[in-house]
Amino acid sequence: MKKVAIGQAGGPTAVINATLAGFVKEIERDHSLLFIQNGYEGLAHGMYLDGDDEMLRRIHLHRDVPGACLGSGRFQLTDAHIEKGLRLLQAQGVDALVFIGGNGTMEALAKLEVEARRQNISLQVLGLPKTVDNDLGGTDHAPGFGSSARYVAQATRDMSRDLASMQNFEKVRVLETMGRNAGWLAAASGLLQEYEEEGPHFIGIPERPIQAEWLLENVNTALNRFGYATVVVSEGVCFGKTGQVARGNVAGRTVLGGISNEVAGFLKSELNVMTRAELLGMNQRSFSEVVSDVDREEAYRVGSVGGEWIREGVSNVMVSIQRNTHHRYSVRMTPIELRNVVAAGERVMPEVFIEDRKAYYEWLKPLIGEDISSYPPPLQRTEMYVD
Amino acid sequence: MKKVAIGQAGGPTAVINATLAGFVKEIERDHSLLFIQNGYEGLAHGMYLDGDDEMLRRIHLHRDVPGACLGSGRFQLTDAHIEKGLRLLQAQGVDALVFIGGNGTMEALAKLEVEARRQNISLQVLGLPKTVDNDLGGTDHAPGFGSSARYVAQATRDMSRDLASMQNFEKVRVLETMGRNAGWLAAASGLLQEYEEEGPHFIGIPERPIQAEWLLENVNTALNRFGYATVVVSEGVCFGKTGQVARGNVAGRTVLGGISNEVAGFLKSELNVMTRAELLGMNQRSFSEVVSDVDREEAYRVGSVGGEWIREGVSNVMVSIQRNTHHRYSVRMTPIELRNVVAAGERVMPEVFIEDRKAYYEWLKPLIGEDISSYPPPLQRTEMYVD
Repeated sequence: MKKVAIGQAGGPTAVINATLAGFVKEIERDHSLLFIQNGYEGLAHGMYLDGDDEMLRRIHLHRDVPGACLGSGRFQLTDAHIEKGLRLLQAQGVDALVFIGGNGTMEALAKLEVEARRQNISLQVLGLPKTVDNDLGGTDHAPGFGSSARYVAQATRDMSRDLASMQNFEKVRVLETMGRNAGWLAAASGLLQEYEEEGPHFIGIPERPIQAEWLLENVNTALNRFGYATVVVSEGVCFGKTGQVARGNVAGRTVLGGISNEVAGFLKSELNVMTRAELLGMNQRSFSEVVSDVDREEAYRVGSVGGEWIREGVSNVMVSIQRNTHHRYSVRMTPIELRNVVAAGERVMPEVFIEDRKAYYEWLKPLIGEDISSYPPPLQRTEMYVD
Repeated sequence: MKKVAIGQAGGPTAVINATLAGFVKEIERDHSLLFIQNGYEGLAHGMYLDGDDEMLRRIHLHRDVPGACLGSGRFQLTDAHIEKGLRLLQAQGVDALVFIGGNGTMEALAKLEVEARRQNISLQVLGLPKTVDNDLGGTDHAPGFGSSARYVAQATRDMSRDLASMQNFEKVRVLETMGRNAGWLAAASGLLQEYEEEGPHFIGIPERPIQAEWLLENVNTALNRFGYATVVVSEGVCFGKTGQVARGNVAGRTVLGGISNEVAGFLKSELNVMTRAELLGMNQRSFSEVVSDVDREEAYRVGSVGGEWIREGVSNVMVSIQRNTHHRYSVRMTPIELRNVVAAGERVMPEVFIEDRKAYYEWLKPLIGEDISSYPPPLQRTEMYVD
């Protein structure tokens, strides 16, 4: 019987607790659990919750609740924290350490593993993936992204229909999605577009700085043809001479946000039309009513598989999701070494998906889960105009 | 067989097309239809779509689509517009005029009715209610509000769980809802709160200016007890010496928005903690995945009843929704004279609901439709802290 410590780190998702529940379900019958609170802060300072029966029961109750139920957060893990964290785990008799997280989390886990080995501490180390903006490397995609993409696609389609009907009052909406360096989420905004008229009429992703003339041309064309324009930009996109727009800096991390205001301000001054900027905001990672069923199941399964691997002694890897190449969408879970996840770096959209949006949507479609109904084409404008 | 003209006006909702579909379904078998585009702008300028079979079919396809499928918008209807609008309706041989809208729409309809009568034009006039922020008078509530309230309540609960897990990074979120003069939507944010820890920890509504000390005290208490605080403010709330915060002025209408930034800035400077302001935005009136089934059914029924009344010759009224006083929630539709809707003015929250939030939630609960599942209590903090 192993003693297994598990924590959640980085920005939460709407399904991060499903991964925790899947892991616990798999491991609870023959191993003991220790829960780490508040991510790496809790690791560094020994903020633990004992995995007694009551606690296990409560973890399962949180399966479908957004946020990270153990507490997550952002924390800069120093060498001193690693030292202390390992010592505290040893004092608790921990045999295996598991974290659910993204790039930063896997990097920290890799360091912990190296340091444990250097000190001859026997510690099995495993990473379970989560993401919102799909920038985690070494995996086809990670749990959390499918639900966020579904939210972004649906919100964009609905707001575009709303805007279409208000075009004698409001002409342009600029929606801002998450995505610091990767445009997967912003690009997902067009997934449900069925007709040219429907937005988005322009998408800005971090992989390509926005060219002002190109943006203007697209917006102008939409305004002329349809009477309104929907623009979607990723929080991390660069616009003209402006670099990424930051709201501030917290705990050494730049908080992005506000590029939609820059873009809206530019369009307003160039076109002199009512323009509204809107952040899609925290709903992208937490809105429980739009969770993709496929995403939720994969999140849970990633946890279960992690549990099996802990039992089998697998270490120094992250559970990755790989797509089977059959006609029908299905995936398998394979181990990928932590250092390879780190080496992969932040995963941006590949050229092929940037250049061929349809190919991207083919790839994305299965991840957003249960079918979303089709909308009819917008009604034509002014069949009769009596004046 | 009457010829009936119908339009949609004001800000759309996620169910405004259900009302249109309900009306058309009721009337199409024995009357002919003319559709007015872009609200009162279309009335003034004769922007019509002919109600042929294809058009009727397409209206029904839009039943569950957000936005106003005929085009809506904001338009200042002058006396000259009314004159011209009536003349154009006469030229089309229109016997009855119907608009789906809110306060401004009903006021314009009342004026049209008076002017038609003055000119001895035979015109049956009927209003069908819609709202987002529930400020329409003369009715228990109006279609659109239930879905918006559901969205606000769910988003607030989910974002609060998300924030709870990020409290070593982010401490306060200030969410801004719609509601120019009425706090129904902002107050709805607490509907799903089951535990003291969950937000909202403070709600600011237009009916009461925010007292800075009281806000600070509530936020401080939440920070001390739970480690984070969720604040919800209505776009129209007044804060300290600041009046309503405007983004700009379009077509004579002040566009509100930004009070959440003011409040967040104040809290940040007073408490020196990471604070994020977020507008819940256009999703409140358009997000199709969170529509209340009760709201959608009532929206459709309001349209059907309107159709029946047109057949029966009822005029100069709005269809209102009245609650039956039985134990189980049910409503009946009754006519209310347009001038009484106008006289009622913008409907703010009554004292009893402001003072007794629970009484308000009892009243609100049936409107948001299908049950939303309960969340388990948040996990306790730091059972063991090893340092």
